[in-house]
Amino acid sequence: MDGHVKAPTVVNGLNVDELFGLIERVKSEPEKANTHWRLATTWQGQARSRSEVEGYGIGGQEVPRRFSIDVDEPCELGGSNRFANPQEYLIAALNACMTVGYVAQCAVRGITLESLVIETEGDINLRGFLGIDSGVPNGYDNLRYTVRIKGDGTKEQFAEIHQAVMATSPNFYNLSRPVSLKPDLVVE
Amino acid sequence: MDGHVKAPTVVNGLNVDELFGLIERVKSEPEKANTHWRLATTWQGQARSRSEVEGYGIGGQEVPRRFSIDVDEPCELGGSNRFANPQEYLIAALNACMTVGYVAQCAVRGITLESLVIETEGDINLRGFLGIDSGVPNGYDNLRYTVRIKGDGTKEQFAEIHQAVMATSPNFYNLSRPVSLKPDLVVE
Repeated sequence: MDGHVKAPTVVNGLNVDELFGLIERVKSEPEKANTHWRLATTWQGQARSRSEVEGYGIGGQEVPRRFSIDVDEPCELGGSNRFANPQEYLIAALNACMTVGYVAQCAVRGITLESLVIETEGDINLRGFLGIDSGVPNGYDNLRYTVRIKGDGTKEQFAEIHQAVMATSPNFYNLSRPVSLKPDLVVE
Repeated sequence: MDGHVKAPTVVNGLNVDELFGLIERVKSEPEKANTHWRLATTWQGQARSRSEVEGYGIGGQEVPRRFSIDVDEPCELGGSNRFANPQEYLIAALNACMTVGYVAQCAVRGITLESLVIETEGDINLRGFLGIDSGVPNGYDNLRYTVRIKGDGTKEQFAEIHQAVMATSPNFYNLSRPVSLKPDLVVE
């Protein structure tokens, strides 16, 4: 029995020792920084799909994980309204990523969060998707969001964290900049 | 009793009469084309969040719908691995949207689909998110995807449909072009 085992530092539920450990590993061994994400999505009839995760890669290691994500469309858009739709999942992906950003940025500064809510909204004109007017944007021109944050940081600290999240969040990056999409069609 | 009630035309589970009806309404009344999407995302502790849908707007009408989307991070990235992560949800949002596109483009051409699978993958270097190197992209530089489609269309028809999906899919648009993100921070 070792009386000197140190309890991990946990802030906002995040193990900050492990987070700093990850940062140090990635600094000294850049190849540990690579993460690989993949999903297979299978049509389930009508407007429904199921996306399945079987694992992801980190630092060249494969980590098995199993999740499925069910998506549908509202009845007015040809679906059966059993699940949220693709535009809603996209916003959830953005908000969830930024949430992790705020929680982690607070944790490394020792700021305890009490609550965090992100409300996001956007508009899409169906004339693009329906092929009626190619001059109309098919997707979101913009997304407006409000971050409501409460914790023991100062206003200045939260403003700094807010900037840091915009500067580092992967999904903020993925939506605010063009991602090159590289398709391959296989007719079976 | 009217003996002339016509059964709806359903292809791939989609009611094609309703789809053409939507197209005609949006052509004659452009304001019917507006859709409004919104979510509120609440931090659940550690790296977990829950996004809640309460409804959406179409053609100025509010349609109540209730869904929640739970997101987490893998253990290696500070999470508890209870749910898929934000980068996986983003891919699911893209794949699900394109799935609806293929199904609808086939339906309006009277092509019956037998199966449709979209496999998508991408890489993210953690040096961006972890703030180690601001020269590293924080998100996906690119996403590669393979569409495996089977049905009674010709190879030429499926190639045409493939182009039409890229040209009209809202989430293909949202990822392949920059969406302007407009934040507001409220420290409570």
